Amino acid sequence: MSDHLPPKTLIYALRYTPMMKATIITIGDEILIGQITDTNSAWLGDELTKLGIRVVQMMTIPDTHEDIHQALTWAERNSDLIVCTGGLGPTKDDITKKALADYVGTELVMDEALSQRIEGYFIKRGIPFLEAHREQCLMPKAARSLTNEMGTAPGMLFEHKGTHILSMPGVPYEMQWIFHNSFVPVLNELGDQAFKIYHKTIKTVGRGETRIAEEIKDIVDALPPYISMSYLPSLGQVKLRLTARHPEDKSVEVESFVQRIVQRIEPLVFGYDKVTLSESLGGLLLTKGFKVATAESCTGGYLAHQLTAVSGASRYYMGSVIAYDYEPKKSLLEVSPSTLEQTGAVSEETVKEMLRGLHKRFSVDLGVAISGIAGPHGGLPDKPVGTIWLAWGSKTEIYTRKLQLTKDRVKNIEYTAVAAMNALRKFCQNS
Amino acid sequence: MSDHLPPKTLIYALRYTPMMKATIITIGDEILIGQITDTNSAWLGDELTKLGIRVVQMMTIPDTHEDIHQALTWAERNSDLIVCTGGLGPTKDDITKKALADYVGTELVMDEALSQRIEGYFIKRGIPFLEAHREQCLMPKAARSLTNEMGTAPGMLFEHKGTHILSMPGVPYEMQWIFHNSFVPVLNELGDQAFKIYHKTIKTVGRGETRIAEEIKDIVDALPPYISMSYLPSLGQVKLRLTARHPEDKSVEVESFVQRIVQRIEPLVFGYDKVTLSESLGGLLLTKGFKVATAESCTGGYLAHQLTAVSGASRYYMGSVIAYDYEPKKSLLEVSPSTLEQTGAVSEETVKEMLRGLHKRFSVDLGVAISGIAGPHGGLPDKPVGTIWLAWGSKTEIYTRKLQLTKDRVKNIEYTAVAAMNALRKFCQNS
Repeated sequence: MSDHLPPKTLIYALRYTPMMKATIITIGDEILIGQITDTNSAWLGDELTKLGIRVVQMMTIPDTHEDIHQALTWAERNSDLIVCTGGLGPTKDDITKKALADYVGTELVMDEALSQRIEGYFIKRGIPFLEAHREQCLMPKAARSLTNEMGTAPGMLFEHKGTHILSMPGVPYEMQWIFHNSFVPVLNELGDQAFKIYHKTIKTVGRGETRIAEEIKDIVDALPPYISMSYLPSLGQVKLRLTARHPEDKSVEVESFVQRIVQRIEPLVFGYDKVTLSESLGGLLLTKGFKVATAESCTGGYLAHQLTAVSGASRYYMGSVIAYDYEPKKSLLEVSPSTLEQTGAVSEETVKEMLRGLHKRFSVDLGVAISGIAGPHGGLPDKPVGTIWLAWGSKTEIYTRKLQLTKDRVKNIEYTAVAAMNALRKFCQNS
Repeated sequence: MSDHLPPKTLIYALRYTPMMKATIITIGDEILIGQITDTNSAWLGDELTKLGIRVVQMMTIPDTHEDIHQALTWAERNSDLIVCTGGLGPTKDDITKKALADYVGTELVMDEALSQRIEGYFIKRGIPFLEAHREQCLMPKAARSLTNEMGTAPGMLFEHKGTHILSMPGVPYEMQWIFHNSFVPVLNELGDQAFKIYHKTIKTVGRGETRIAEEIKDIVDALPPYISMSYLPSLGQVKLRLTARHPEDKSVEVESFVQRIVQRIEPLVFGYDKVTLSESLGGLLLTKGFKVATAESCTGGYLAHQLTAVSGASRYYMGSVIAYDYEPKKSLLEVSPSTLEQTGAVSEETVKEMLRGLHKRFSVDLGVAISGIAGPHGGLPDKPVGTIWLAWGSKTEIYTRKLQLTKDRVKNIEYTAVAAMNALRKFCQNS
């Protein structure tokens, strides 16, 4: 397996020529105890990568002097740039600022200009300017102050033994503002980033990553060292992401590889980059001028929710009957009592009748009906938990499929919605 | 505000006496380049903290031999437990497994029992079992294998110089399953946690955290240093989490603080710990013997999905009519064309008629009807985006409410579902 898959190429590409290397350090106990998910690191990882800087490590540490010094020492061994977030701001103990000043061997001095700016900001908003606020204006002497128009704590840029250390508050919009407006403009003074990055993601549905990898092995093997590919699987879907990193623009080459891959696995591909399956299906329905409705039992509205999560869905989505109980299956979808009695609610015949009933209730071009046992309880000897029937199609052309899924309720519901959207997608393509 | 909020007490509690220390290491380039936000670390941070283990550091590194060895060496200096996620799975290069085996000085051998189990799993699903899949069953000899019923790659537990190293795949539901079902049961063999941790979370709906904090300020101020409290807000809900960390069992003291808080804010409290609002509502409906149905427009099935995400919902949830378009509002819910024409689909009169229609279609004790403009487009001068009407009640007792929410489609949908469930909850309580 290892011979044709991406990590090696990726790592080779990453090391292809020297580029600036960065470590991201997040300071804060609330992340270590899992109270907050660290979204700043992902944002910074993306931004730095786009700037051609290679992120070699992310760390999250407590806000103590010792932890900060140890992490900086550790990060310096392989980083040209260290980006710290967190530990600055009005309710913090200012440990971070002191620890940083100490680390680079400088002292804290009052920044009078900053103090005046912040006092003005407070007066304007009618907030009393307290001594605690003024203390915030103590800045490390050797640091370059980076303006923060979104809050009171500025960013800081230090240099220590050839490594640049950027420190910013942890509030996402303040951090992002400082990064874009105060840091990026001075970045070119810090080092050379001659790199051009190009990304393209192919989105597929209906086949597992191992089988896809088998099918496109020869194409992936032919990728040059500066183009890498990653497989990113989720329930029923796999994303294939190609990335070029090169001193020159390699977008045309990436696109030609994307074309070769897509030709090979065309029926699985529903879109590129950030397009979701429900958005892609929505676009297809609009193109064909089709209206759609759904009849759900075990998925309990999750499919409808996925379809209507797309802005503008009202142009093609009419509605749904969620017939969770036997009664609405009979009264609203006209499933015959004898079918329910003889074959049960989870059967090919029942979903077919649900679909026919749906077409009587809604004047739509196509629909889908779902009935199954989502679990974790309610399995029968001949119908274990995870048995789910789908029927889809127009008034005259009906298809069915049986899924045999897991014991996990949430996974079963989500996977079934993906399978249903894929069935509708294929029906549209063939109509 | 900072004077009565938890961080300082929390940190004091964390450092109160020695406890098992852990580092979380995430392996994967897709996180470093910001393609994926690392949610596993937050989940693990929360779980480990609840187990009384102090997370001293989180790291994200590339999946190379060298980076893995360096990170392990670095983490070992202050950790009793190192939890690694990522780098395992069918299309990975198995660098992680090899690097770990190498690091602890063991070799990879074929695990025949695992190979048979996985082959059986594949045959059952009609998927070909490839040589690549079999290679996955090579396991480090010195590792304890941790069963993974959610996927093919098992977890692994190593020991190295007195530090325990846990390695799990990065797919969240696989990682979570292994952690809970295969790791936690063996945790007490790993070391001493002389600490007694006790958690209790009060779950509330219908009021913001600042107002709740005001109301219970005196109780929170009276918490001893070994009991901390955190506010965890989400859309329409706030969780209040109390945590005791002490060499002795402090559960009785925590419970008495919980009681004092709950007495103060009783109408807002719907449950404790992991109970969701939909589960709490489900329990209430069962107790009262009430059956419920829903009629949704702008929430497009999200409310139905929330209600049916609860296992056993079929005992009280009958179904839903999702009337996204005007047509099903008229044909299925009998909203009169003149009402739609005169007041529009987003109006008090329309949701009242939807609710009355729902009661005609379903024989239920109570129901809820929703119509609004989820956005981001479709606003009108007198009905901006985020205008949403709710009607709920029995056949004879009907209540309505207008929400004025944001421009964010997803937030509007989710918040409305919470408001609807809270309305049903209060109706049940007063019936």
